[in-house]
Amino acid sequence: MNTAQPPPGGARPGGRTARTRQAVLEAVFEELGEGGYAALTMERIARRSGVHVATIYRRWRSTEGLVCELMTDLSAEVPLPDTGTLAGDLRALARAIAAFYSEPRYRGLLEAVVSAAAREPAAADVLREFFDDRLRLAGRMVHRAVDRGELPADADPDEVMAALGAPFYYRLLISRRPVDLRLADCAADAAYAAALAGVFTHTEGDENGEGGR
Amino acid sequence: MNTAQPPPGGARPGGRTARTRQAVLEAVFEELGEGGYAALTMERIARRSGVHVATIYRRWRSTEGLVCELMTDLSAEVPLPDTGTLAGDLRALARAIAAFYSEPRYRGLLEAVVSAAAREPAAADVLREFFDDRLRLAGRMVHRAVDRGELPADADPDEVMAALGAPFYYRLLISRRPVDLRLADCAADAAYAAALAGVFTHTEGDENGEGGR
Repeated sequence: MNTAQPPPGGARPGGRTARTRQAVLEAVFEELGEGGYAALTMERIARRSGVHVATIYRRWRSTEGLVCELMTDLSAEVPLPDTGTLAGDLRALARAIAAFYSEPRYRGLLEAVVSAAAREPAAADVLREFFDDRLRLAGRMVHRAVDRGELPADADPDEVMAALGAPFYYRLLISRRPVDLRLADCAADAAYAAALAGVFTHTEGDENGEGGR
Repeated sequence: MNTAQPPPGGARPGGRTARTRQAVLEAVFEELGEGGYAALTMERIARRSGVHVATIYRRWRSTEGLVCELMTDLSAEVPLPDTGTLAGDLRALARAIAAFYSEPRYRGLLEAVVSAAAREPAAADVLREFFDDRLRLAGRMVHRAVDRGELPADADPDEVMAALGAPFYYRLLISRRPVDLRLADCAADAAYAAALAGVFTHTEGDENGEGGR
């Protein structure tokens, strides 16, 4: 994942507003990397970005507003692995997720948005849409596996990919310990074993064939 | 799960302090059920409990302190299923977890503690210990499965139970949608399939036999 990039605020036409926005979002990101969400305040962001604190309050209202905009900006970049097998794709993606969350600023951003979502419906919407998009994208791996005959056509891509992702969020938000390679490989292998065993196929009840293409 | 019980503050010797504590914690629980963590304030808790707001501030300092104490109180009650098979035990426990989080006040409490954990290290400790305890308890199901010869002796109980639980927290905190029976059965069957496939056994690297009994 292109995690070395600053938030792509600079992609907008480069006026003063765009530069302010980029400076502020970069400062949020750096603060999250250093002190996590626990230490994030508007004052610290102002100091680091060089943008006046009143300007930041006027435009974003709260740290919740800022972390949500930062997360929305991130949604562009997820290179999907294509190794030729579902087992390989799942392992590669799981290791990329582990590498992503080994960076403190991404852990901090996740915590910040989950926390904001508990307080503000708008933040909950950002969170849900962000992960829904990722799930849909990653679902292509499942479609390819169906095309190759690795999985039955009614395997549900969302369920497979949610199974892959869930252990990371349990580890980060509930167990509150770092992610590691063992977690990544277990998550991938568990999702694969369950998919092969037919756990994520809709055979009864929901018969609309929505799991296929 | 005995979710109909009020927080067991009343189990303490029944002095005035104990009664105050119980009234406040019950009020927190009811507020979480009605408005979630988003609407929880010290003032609303004071109004509902009939305890003066200054008393609440003095004893608990913040809503974070209150929700943590409420969660600590809950940790007593988890009846573990014992159906005779691991597949049956996992399904029964998953359905109990789904029933638990179908109650708004438990969803609210989870959100509240996860949110508090992002801001306060003490809340993070409460969260980690609460779920570590649950994991250890539930691990008995895995030990029994090993005794029955359903799983190899080096199956890691914590990893099996984390795999069972993870999908619920992904659904509640990340996808932000309600839990349902389909999720419960998928979580149970996926954990079972992965355990049978040997995903949660330590065969390389970690050779200390810690996965056994």
